[in-house]
Amino acid sequence: MRIDFNNMLDTAVGEHGITMAEVEAEAAKVPAVHAAMTAKKDEMAWRALPYNQDAIARDITDKGNWINDHFQNFVVLGIGGSALGSKALFTGTKHLRYNELKRAERAGCRFYVVDNVDPDGIQALFDIIDPAETCFHVISKSGNTVETMSQFMIVLHMLKETIGDDFMRNIVLTTDKETGILRNIANAYNMTPYVVPDGVGGRFSVLSPVGLVSAAVLGLDIQMLFEGARKADEKCTKSDLYENPAYMYAMLQTIAMHKGCNISVMMPYADGLANTAEWYAQLWAESLGKQYDLSGEIVHAGQTPVRALGVTDQHSQIQLYTEGPFDKVITFVGVENFDTVMPIPKPPIDVQDASYLEGQTLNKLIASELAATEYAVTQAGKMNMMVTLSELGPVELSEFLFFLEMATAAAGEFLGINAFDQPGVEAGKIATFALMGRSGYEEKAKELSSPKAQNDKFIFEL
Amino acid sequence: MRIDFNNMLDTAVGEHGITMAEVEAEAAKVPAVHAAMTAKKDEMAWRALPYNQDAIARDITDKGNWINDHFQNFVVLGIGGSALGSKALFTGTKHLRYNELKRAERAGCRFYVVDNVDPDGIQALFDIIDPAETCFHVISKSGNTVETMSQFMIVLHMLKETIGDDFMRNIVLTTDKETGILRNIANAYNMTPYVVPDGVGGRFSVLSPVGLVSAAVLGLDIQMLFEGARKADEKCTKSDLYENPAYMYAMLQTIAMHKGCNISVMMPYADGLANTAEWYAQLWAESLGKQYDLSGEIVHAGQTPVRALGVTDQHSQIQLYTEGPFDKVITFVGVENFDTVMPIPKPPIDVQDASYLEGQTLNKLIASELAATEYAVTQAGKMNMMVTLSELGPVELSEFLFFLEMATAAAGEFLGINAFDQPGVEAGKIATFALMGRSGYEEKAKELSSPKAQNDKFIFEL
Repeated sequence: MRIDFNNMLDTAVGEHGITMAEVEAEAAKVPAVHAAMTAKKDEMAWRALPYNQDAIARDITDKGNWINDHFQNFVVLGIGGSALGSKALFTGTKHLRYNELKRAERAGCRFYVVDNVDPDGIQALFDIIDPAETCFHVISKSGNTVETMSQFMIVLHMLKETIGDDFMRNIVLTTDKETGILRNIANAYNMTPYVVPDGVGGRFSVLSPVGLVSAAVLGLDIQMLFEGARKADEKCTKSDLYENPAYMYAMLQTIAMHKGCNISVMMPYADGLANTAEWYAQLWAESLGKQYDLSGEIVHAGQTPVRALGVTDQHSQIQLYTEGPFDKVITFVGVENFDTVMPIPKPPIDVQDASYLEGQTLNKLIASELAATEYAVTQAGKMNMMVTLSELGPVELSEFLFFLEMATAAAGEFLGINAFDQPGVEAGKIATFALMGRSGYEEKAKELSSPKAQNDKFIFEL
Repeated sequence: MRIDFNNMLDTAVGEHGITMAEVEAEAAKVPAVHAAMTAKKDEMAWRALPYNQDAIARDITDKGNWINDHFQNFVVLGIGGSALGSKALFTGTKHLRYNELKRAERAGCRFYVVDNVDPDGIQALFDIIDPAETCFHVISKSGNTVETMSQFMIVLHMLKETIGDDFMRNIVLTTDKETGILRNIANAYNMTPYVVPDGVGGRFSVLSPVGLVSAAVLGLDIQMLFEGARKADEKCTKSDLYENPAYMYAMLQTIAMHKGCNISVMMPYADGLANTAEWYAQLWAESLGKQYDLSGEIVHAGQTPVRALGVTDQHSQIQLYTEGPFDKVITFVGVENFDTVMPIPKPPIDVQDASYLEGQTLNKLIASELAATEYAVTQAGKMNMMVTLSELGPVELSEFLFFLEMATAAAGEFLGINAFDQPGVEAGKIATFALMGRSGYEEKAKELSSPKAQNDKFIFEL
């Protein structure tokens, strides 16, 4: 992996770039950031995941093989951090039409992540899979996630109807080590769930059983995921800004935020990395979007992540990125070696002015478009950086994910906020409980049902 | 369709909302906006598409039937506006696991949109389809789009190899009526391509043959698409702000932009509308992201669209939306009636504290979560609006798309910019040509290959 930050600087993008004086001013915080990152290392239990899971990795690998031996489909029931890591690993390392391949061409089960409660979406899945032949991995750290519990209840009922009393055979659970509904169910039914360790929040859980069970079912070598993360960790624990890419990323983004860049675009040039951009969007948004700083001051911090895909979104977003406001940082992600080399052949007809493409490859085209777009946004004075992965595989992908986790934690320190909580989602959860009639939420239900003042002139019926 | 703008106002969200004084000031522009929208109606040829295509709709419907009778797969080769409308129609109206259904359960062909040049992505498609059994719809208004031409060349070569000289039988073309490579090829091979009419830019082309051929292959009634668009058009041509939802949307977004909201989130609560949010992202970004206004002043206009999905992104983005900066407008999109009613049954085990969900439905859950999230972001003082579609079908979806087109055009007038060009993508296109060795671009190639000044301290190898 290679990261080039040069296009964040005024030397590359001109007046809207970061000056060396700004770098030096913010770099003064690095010792304090590094001290905090070091002191809080144990609290950030996700940092130990690449090192302390050898036994669990063996167990999960066996489990993955067992699942592939006994089922046709594997379905993750989870949402947010319980889903996004699996999705990133899936499309980032496997065939891009995996579920449409024949069984012999796959590592095992068809692979689905169900991270919504859209009735049509759930029904659509059940229209194409036989529950009896499906293993469901139910993931909720709290064990109380309303979406996942609803899915779980539907699946349990369906399994009981189709396969009878042995329905728990089709269920794998991952939850907290002690508390929550899922843990209680596991205790009651004598199941041994996988554990999301304390200190591993959903968005930092990809290398815990939350993501590893998926990896095993997909036939990935879990040790290679650890290896990639360790490679990133080695660099991202250095004290020196110029040796630590996570600190550099965090620092430059922090300066950019202070200069008015409230948008962080991640734009990979690879279909398989679209879900990695989704994963980053949760990581960056939930970690840094905070009302209060650590001293209790109201700051309304946060940079809005935007998920783009090259080259596709050149024909959707690049007009805005080049000509629009100076309000964003673009992180391009390129891949040096795709699995496929795809020639552009001389076709059986005369393609006239397009004949310059004959004999070239899509590989050269996508690389050229990435370079061309980097050039165009840089010329337009927009800050950007370039991450280059040598290939799409478990080592490189995991390295990239762990780098981003470290960068996010460091950004929390630069911003002086708590990157590991999410108090802002409580209000919506409570309102959902109230609207669904959960007991104990009657007062909130009353508040929500009281008519709100509204101006009918601002309501349109078409 | 119903649109409630109340949560844009300070009466709902407090100090960061729009005041009636701000509404009145901006509303003063409405007569001029309306005059311009009326005067430019003929230039905006996309506005006539719901009215002037009866003959072509019949032809395309026949073509769709013929394709479904003769092929197993239908593949759109296009990018940007040539792809996004088809994707929105596909997932917005059809089964959410359409390609995994058996043939008898589908309207016809499996349906794919190939809008990237990722070598692994293209290879993945060819791993699962037989080109001989596949109809390819090649779409490029200019006829010169490098991505689409590359895909086309690969497909032509593959078809010739597999089915011999009759390879053009598997090709449908849509392009300009006179110029470009695709038009020349059509003339040389005696084909009759479908036409993207003048005045119909890619991002406004969903109701032209660009999207209609897909609709026909998907078994949609094209007249229902026209009907929906006409319903929107009827309201969106009114002169009065309080009768015209497109003007209201455009005006409130314009005021929000002036108040520092440089982000426009579209967050539908329906899996099928995720691609509609993608479609909107192109429409809004490319139309309004402009360096110059109509008088030639540098303005760097534009609001960055963010594509979110409810409820999924509640567990990814809502922490930021509630606690983060006051820098965005959220357009929620709800669906009143899904095709499926999905009960949450009493499962065969005791789910303890989750038992309040028993006997309810996912439909109630997703509606409650939407209401709860609207409540939470409104309480947090963040501007938002609520679009409600009665169902997901061709009429409602087309009505929504056409409303958004009219709103975008009107926003161009409020901002005083040209919403219909995209000069900012030229630099990247030219650089791509140069890097791919197209003749005539040698000077640019030389410029691009000259070493750039860079500081090695800002480059990291991991």
